Amino acid sequence: MTRKENPAGTLLITTIEKETVMTREIYLDNAATTKVQPDVVEIMVKAMEEDYGNPSSLHRKGAEAERLIRHAAEQIAHTLRIKEKEIIFTSGGTESNNLAIIGAAMARRREGKHLITTVFEHASAANPFSFLEKEGFEVTRVPVSKEGIVDPEEIAAAIRPDTLLVSVMMVNNEIGSVQPIAEIGKLIKEKNPKTLFHVDAIQGYGKFVIRPHKENIDMLSVSGHKIHGPKGSGFLYVSENARIVPIIFGGGQQNDMRSGTENVPGILGLGKACELIYTDHAEKMSWLYELKLRLTEGLEQLEGVHVNGPKVTRKESAPAEIVEKYGSHDLPDTEHPEYRPDAAPQIVSASFDGVRSEVLLHALEDQGIMVSAGSACSSNGQRHKSATLTAIGLEEPLLSGTIRFSFGIYNTEEDVEETLAVLRELLPRLRRFVRR
Amino acid sequence: MTRKENPAGTLLITTIEKETVMTREIYLDNAATTKVQPDVVEIMVKAMEEDYGNPSSLHRKGAEAERLIRHAAEQIAHTLRIKEKEIIFTSGGTESNNLAIIGAAMARRREGKHLITTVFEHASAANPFSFLEKEGFEVTRVPVSKEGIVDPEEIAAAIRPDTLLVSVMMVNNEIGSVQPIAEIGKLIKEKNPKTLFHVDAIQGYGKFVIRPHKENIDMLSVSGHKIHGPKGSGFLYVSENARIVPIIFGGGQQNDMRSGTENVPGILGLGKACELIYTDHAEKMSWLYELKLRLTEGLEQLEGVHVNGPKVTRKESAPAEIVEKYGSHDLPDTEHPEYRPDAAPQIVSASFDGVRSEVLLHALEDQGIMVSAGSACSSNGQRHKSATLTAIGLEEPLLSGTIRFSFGIYNTEEDVEETLAVLRELLPRLRRFVRR
Repeated sequence: MTRKENPAGTLLITTIEKETVMTREIYLDNAATTKVQPDVVEIMVKAMEEDYGNPSSLHRKGAEAERLIRHAAEQIAHTLRIKEKEIIFTSGGTESNNLAIIGAAMARRREGKHLITTVFEHASAANPFSFLEKEGFEVTRVPVSKEGIVDPEEIAAAIRPDTLLVSVMMVNNEIGSVQPIAEIGKLIKEKNPKTLFHVDAIQGYGKFVIRPHKENIDMLSVSGHKIHGPKGSGFLYVSENARIVPIIFGGGQQNDMRSGTENVPGILGLGKACELIYTDHAEKMSWLYELKLRLTEGLEQLEGVHVNGPKVTRKESAPAEIVEKYGSHDLPDTEHPEYRPDAAPQIVSASFDGVRSEVLLHALEDQGIMVSAGSACSSNGQRHKSATLTAIGLEEPLLSGTIRFSFGIYNTEEDVEETLAVLRELLPRLRRFVRR
Repeated sequence: MTRKENPAGTLLITTIEKETVMTREIYLDNAATTKVQPDVVEIMVKAMEEDYGNPSSLHRKGAEAERLIRHAAEQIAHTLRIKEKEIIFTSGGTESNNLAIIGAAMARRREGKHLITTVFEHASAANPFSFLEKEGFEVTRVPVSKEGIVDPEEIAAAIRPDTLLVSVMMVNNEIGSVQPIAEIGKLIKEKNPKTLFHVDAIQGYGKFVIRPHKENIDMLSVSGHKIHGPKGSGFLYVSENARIVPIIFGGGQQNDMRSGTENVPGILGLGKACELIYTDHAEKMSWLYELKLRLTEGLEQLEGVHVNGPKVTRKESAPAEIVEKYGSHDLPDTEHPEYRPDAAPQIVSASFDGVRSEVLLHALEDQGIMVSAGSACSSNGQRHKSATLTAIGLEEPLLSGTIRFSFGIYNTEEDVEETLAVLRELLPRLRRFVRR
C-alpha cells in the first residue's frame, strides 16, 4: 500500500491499494497468541509420526519419548537456571496458574488461610483466587499505580504470619507494565520466609531474563503459545523447596504432580520454543522495543490518542528512579539500557478519543491489521469491563476506546509504519460517524 | 525374519535374521498410545503455521480459529449423535475423567455425598475418587467378575437417594473387558434419575459405536492419543441436562467449563481423528477383532499361557447369554456378530507361567516387538500391583507374568504371526533361566 494522502478525501483507499489490503496481513495480536516457529512445528511432526511412544511404556519407543521429554526439560531449565526436576509440564498458562495458586493454598490449608495478589491479575490467576475465597481462604488484593505498577511495600505490609502465598504477574497482559519482581520477592522473604512467591510470567517469560533463585521466585507460570510455541503447552516451575499438591489426579506422571500421558509433541515443541526465544535474545528484545518505541511515538503524534502504562523512552530520557528500582536484578535494563525496564517490549495499549474499540478493531481488520480490544484471553469475545484498565484508573469513554497492539518476532518496521498510516486515515473518518 | 525353526536350538536368531530384527518394529502397545495419522498431522501443521489465531480474538484470524474449533466439535458430536455444545475440550483423558468426577461431585456436594465406581478403574478415575473421599465424600466400589465384568445389579443395589454419581469404565485398559454400559445406565436411571452416569470411554471410544442418549450416559471421557489422534487432546461429553462445575478457572472459555486458550491444533487434530476412526468403522474393528482372535488362538496353543478377560470367539461358539445381554444397544454385536461383545477388539492380556513380565517385555523388545507390562499409563514405569489383575482374582506368580498386547489400525496379520513365532522361540529359553 502506498502511503500517499488520498486526494479525494472520501475514499480511504484506491482500487490498487484495495488489492494490497486484501492480501495484507499485519498481525499485531501476539499477546493473544503467536505463530508457531517452523523448527517447533518440525519437531512436533516428528514426535507425532515417529517418536509417538508413551513415556510410561517400558520399551524403546517409550524410553525414547521419555528421553526427549527430559531433553525439553533441560532446554527450559537452562533458560531459567533451574533444575530440570523443578519443571511441571501443563496444558498451558491457565493450568500453570491454577496449579500454582490452588496447589500451594491447598497444600498448607491447615497452616493458614491468607493469600495475597493484585487487583489486576489475568483471569487465570484472579479466578483461582475467587475459587479459594469460596473455599474459605482470605484474599488481599493490593492496588496498582496509574501506570499499572504494584508497590512492593504494599505487598510487604499485607503479609501476615499465616500468609501462604503471594501471586503477582510479571507483565500485565493488557498494558505491558512490568512489576518489580525481584524487589517483591526480597521483601516477601524478609517478612515471612514461609510465604511462597508465585509469578505469572505468561507475558514475561521469553521477553525478560528471569532468574527465580535470585529473585526469590518459588513458582513461575509459563505458556508455550505466547512465545511462538505450541498451544496446549506450558509449564510451572516449582522450586524444589516449595510444596504444592496436584489439582489433576491419575497415573502419577511427573512425580505425581501432573497425571496424564505427557503431551510429548507439545512438550518437545515447548522446549524448542523456549530455547529459540532465548537465543540471540537481547537482539530480539531490542527489536521489539524498537517497534514499540516507534509505534508509541507515532501514536502520540496522532490527535486524541493516549498510550496507557509505562512508556518506553530513549535512553537519555529514562527516569533515574526507574532505572535504579529495576537495576537490582536481571530485568532488561542490563541489556537494553535505552528502554525503561518497567515497560514490556511487546505490548502497546492505547485509548482513542471518540472511537469505540470494537469499531476501530474491525476497521483495522478491514485493512488487514489484527489487534485486540482489551485482552483476548477472555470468554469468547464477551464484553466486560477490563479489570486492568479499571485498576489504572482509566474512565469512560477512554475505557471503551482502548486497543492493544502486541508484537512478535515476525513483526517488521513496515508493520508499524503501515499501521500508523492506516490509523492516520481511519481515525478522522471513524470519528466523523460518532456523535459525541 | 524367516519363521523356520532354529536348528541349533541355542541361538535364537541367525545373523541374517538379526539384521531383520534390528529394523523390525512391531508396535503392539496401542492401548498405551498410538501413532498419529497423517491427515491429523497435516491439519495440525496448518493450524500452527496459518490458522494460529486465538479463538477469543475478535479479528478474522480469531474468528477462523473459532470456526475451525466448531467444525471439530461438529465432527465429534456426529460420532456420538450429541450436540456440539455438549463437548468440553480438555488436555486429554485424565483431565476429562477428573473434570467429570470432581466436577459432578462438587457441583452437588450440598445435596449428597455418595459416589459409586468399580474396583478396577484406571488411575485417572480411581484417584479423583480417592481425592473426593478425603474431601468428605463416601465412595462405594463395586467388584467385578473373574472376567472383569461388573454386574449392573450390584451397581443398582448400591444406589441411594443421595448418590450423586456412578462412574464406570467402558473398556478396561488392561484386559479389554467391556462393561454392559446400556444396562447399567438403564438401571441407574430407574433407581435414581438424579444420579449422574459417567463413562470413562478412553479405551472404548473409537472401538465401539456409542450413543449416550440411548445408553443413559450423562458424561463420557475420551482421549485423542488412543485413536491415532494427538496427545494432549481429549474431550468430555456432558449432557446438556447434567450440571458440573469446572476444575480449572480463568478466562471463561468453553462456556466457563474449561478456561484457557483452546489448543486449536490439538482440537482440530482430535476432530479429524474422531471422524477418521468412525469412517469404515465396522471394517476397522472387524480387522482388530481378527487380529485379536488370531493372537488369542495362537497364545492358547502355547504351553503355560493364560489369556485374561473375555475372549473373542468364532460366532458359532459365542455364548447366547452374552449375545443377549449386550444385544440391547449399539455395542459391536450388531456389527460384528462373530465376536463376543464383552471383549474389546484391541486388547489381549496374557499371563505366562514361569516368566516375569519385565523379562518377557524386554526380550520381545530385543526382537523389535513392543508390548506393555500391565498398564503403561502409570507413574513412569514404577512397579506396583495391578488393580485390574488383582480385581479379577489373578494370583502370583501369574500376576507378575502378565503382558498386554494391544492393536491399532496400522497392525497387520504379519505382526501377529511374527509375535507368535518369536514367543514360541522365546518362552522355552526364558523359562530355562528361571528357577521356580
